[in-house]
Amino acid sequence: MSPVKRSTPNRKPAAKTGEPPFRKILIANRGEIALRVIFACKELGIQTVAVYSEADRNALHVRFADEDICIGPPASGKSYLNIPQVIAAAEVTGAEAIHPGYGFLSENPHFVDVCQACGIVFIGPNAEIIRTMGNKAQAKATMLAAGVPLMPGSDGIVETVEDALAWGEKIGYPVIVKASAGGGGRGMRIVNSPDEMSDMYNTARTEAKAAFTDDSVYMEKYLLEPRHIEVQILGDLFGNIIHLGERECSIQRRHQKLIEESPSPALTPELRKRIHETAVRAAKAVGYFNAGTIEFLLDARGDFFFMEMNTRVQVEHPVTELVSGVDIVKEQIRIAAGRKLSYAQEDIVLRGSAIECRINAEDPWKFTPCPGRITALHFPGGPGIRMDTAMHQDAVIPPYYDSMVAKLIAYGNDRTEALARMRRALDTIVVEGIRTTSPLHRRIIDHPDFIKGDFSTKWLEVFLAQLEKERAEEA
Amino acid sequence: MSPVKRSTPNRKPAAKTGEPPFRKILIANRGEIALRVIFACKELGIQTVAVYSEADRNALHVRFADEDICIGPPASGKSYLNIPQVIAAAEVTGAEAIHPGYGFLSENPHFVDVCQACGIVFIGPNAEIIRTMGNKAQAKATMLAAGVPLMPGSDGIVETVEDALAWGEKIGYPVIVKASAGGGGRGMRIVNSPDEMSDMYNTARTEAKAAFTDDSVYMEKYLLEPRHIEVQILGDLFGNIIHLGERECSIQRRHQKLIEESPSPALTPELRKRIHETAVRAAKAVGYFNAGTIEFLLDARGDFFFMEMNTRVQVEHPVTELVSGVDIVKEQIRIAAGRKLSYAQEDIVLRGSAIECRINAEDPWKFTPCPGRITALHFPGGPGIRMDTAMHQDAVIPPYYDSMVAKLIAYGNDRTEALARMRRALDTIVVEGIRTTSPLHRRIIDHPDFIKGDFSTKWLEVFLAQLEKERAEEA
Repeated sequence: MSPVKRSTPNRKPAAKTGEPPFRKILIANRGEIALRVIFACKELGIQTVAVYSEADRNALHVRFADEDICIGPPASGKSYLNIPQVIAAAEVTGAEAIHPGYGFLSENPHFVDVCQACGIVFIGPNAEIIRTMGNKAQAKATMLAAGVPLMPGSDGIVETVEDALAWGEKIGYPVIVKASAGGGGRGMRIVNSPDEMSDMYNTARTEAKAAFTDDSVYMEKYLLEPRHIEVQILGDLFGNIIHLGERECSIQRRHQKLIEESPSPALTPELRKRIHETAVRAAKAVGYFNAGTIEFLLDARGDFFFMEMNTRVQVEHPVTELVSGVDIVKEQIRIAAGRKLSYAQEDIVLRGSAIECRINAEDPWKFTPCPGRITALHFPGGPGIRMDTAMHQDAVIPPYYDSMVAKLIAYGNDRTEALARMRRALDTIVVEGIRTTSPLHRRIIDHPDFIKGDFSTKWLEVFLAQLEKERAEEA
Repeated sequence: MSPVKRSTPNRKPAAKTGEPPFRKILIANRGEIALRVIFACKELGIQTVAVYSEADRNALHVRFADEDICIGPPASGKSYLNIPQVIAAAEVTGAEAIHPGYGFLSENPHFVDVCQACGIVFIGPNAEIIRTMGNKAQAKATMLAAGVPLMPGSDGIVETVEDALAWGEKIGYPVIVKASAGGGGRGMRIVNSPDEMSDMYNTARTEAKAAFTDDSVYMEKYLLEPRHIEVQILGDLFGNIIHLGERECSIQRRHQKLIEESPSPALTPELRKRIHETAVRAAKAVGYFNAGTIEFLLDARGDFFFMEMNTRVQVEHPVTELVSGVDIVKEQIRIAAGRKLSYAQEDIVLRGSAIECRINAEDPWKFTPCPGRITALHFPGGPGIRMDTAMHQDAVIPPYYDSMVAKLIAYGNDRTEALARMRRALDTIVVEGIRTTSPLHRRIIDHPDFIKGDFSTKWLEVFLAQLEKERAEEA
């Protein structure tokens, strides 16, 4: 265990126990997460300020906040990402703190600096932590120093085919050759065995040169069917860091998570313990505070590798709230006000199983956005169902923002019950006027692989291709 | 402990584990409880049949059931209480079992007999149990035999003032003198001390004579500020009986519960244990099976007295589901199919705190029904909130039935958190087009007495009188 690194807080610990952590908070976000933060503030007795773009004038987060300020035109660059406007709104309303939600300004260290300079508490970690974890090389170096397993790879650029073969031997096949300057899949080649190396290495360099005018490449181990496992972390300003268990987020399309659950159906108790402890060690290594998530890739042999850390609340935090009983957003606010964590690690007992489907306003088969007016709406209720959304009947889903319009979350005493509840909730949700991804979710959760918990991050693409084929045959 | 009495089941235990308990169930109810049962059936893989009156043609329970049958005109006597129509619907659709919900036919032993005669499983206890517990004298005699505390009272009719004084001494003041043939508060007098006895006894007799042409009276102990505490029971056909903890239901208006919670804020651990054990003993004494509730009155000294048993699922069952993790409706269905209880008593761990507000379509201050069309609707979501309702936008609340249109339930790690969540849920619920009791709930849960848990079944009437006065002064 590395010693706990202590970081500079975004403010001095101040608020007295018994009093609300803050008097007034501005929420620099929209949609369901803005509502989620408003709910937490209301429960803590904190006044709220909503900011909104011209497209969100009639949004529920505006309706339910105590105060509201329009901060610009619909385009998020001009409103929700407009730092001077957000700061001005906080100053005008006398908000003591800003909750950034996820997306938008939530992982922008410059914004945190500006808040700091203006004497406003940013509800999240400090700018230094965000910078460290936002820089891939720095994050990896920090994790390496803390003994957190990283994806095996070359130490920097691989200059020759001979070097590439040597690294291949060392890392173990399959490996991936990647352009140093790369992105978007270009200059990237998977190499399954040494006899493919020469061709693939040269092709990658040629592509890299063409795409980025830089033919330098590096190498990493390539996981054929990894699972995405992440661990929820909470840390306070006193160096206390705990985890709230893991989330399984392998059902993804183009790195967009569609379904998340906790616990992961893939972990043995021993492996689970090891991943949790590693995540806490990783968080301690950067002196982490507030809510954060350590993401790992897990291979079929039970080895796992650090991928990245998200230094904010995650979309999928509700599944963890349901199995842990911890209100993560309230805890974020308390921590930012200088309170000690409400829980020690031994207080956290993970119970039951929770699963979340992200309902997007999209064509469920083509994934094209479907903004529009909601003409009929029924939320499934009953036992074990939580719905986080800012949708309401006659609401207009604007085309400017993320297409996620609701999170449907089901809890059960075990995974079978959680799935049964999700199934009936998907069967009784009514959203008319726009198309949503809920029919796709319905198909996924009925698939034998999904029911068995037998899937990787590659699974959904294969299933979608199969559905595509079925539909083509039907047409 | 009395030995467990074994009762005749409504069918022979049959369905195999692993298979759904039934193939098809008819729900002889409407509104939120019909939806609740449909949800449970869907989760268990059981087909559902909805029955509906002409007023409920567009109701959600009709929309979400697999089959539906109109059983008559709006008046419940001609539809939901129409036994031949309900049975015919079950026979036409081949439903193996009927879930009666609460109200309507749920405690009608004749209906249970008819089901039995038609080879349809009634999801509830048998007719004999319902008859026994539905007859006040028989229920009391059974409880007395089982050593369950009854409200102290005279052994039958009190013939003279001298006898009344003797009983008063024995029972302890205050006592209540009640007309044997009485009801509706007539022929009823509270006696606070021996010197009031003569007057009150004679007045009660005179009133009884005038009202019922029968001047016989009896006496009972009168509790000044009792609390209504009830215990949820589950029993299977094998004689296993467990409790799922208690519910506090003291916030009542004219014996109508408005707010229920679990656990009760009034019980010490010792008293809680004693009440739970007594309830299990009471249920065992009648050989109870399926879900049932034993209701007690609790006095300020910690003595409690059997009031009655409800032989069906209660409106307020969700608070128990939230603190126990047991899905009571699914358990009812499993039990009726001859399955063993899924839980032993030691499996039941009660956690956190849950509170329910019954949202009625009523003027919140005058309690006059407000049927009509719902023009706007937003359900509060987020952590710890459950909403059981059949409302939807553009739904018409018909004037023919119970005015309860939604149950808003909040869960928290403790009572403070549950109340904070209820408060923000009430602040963010939107129901337009009809009036509802939610503003009254909002007032109650902010009252210092309520927050302290310091209230009895008399509390609400006093608070309402005070609100009435305030409003009169404002006007």
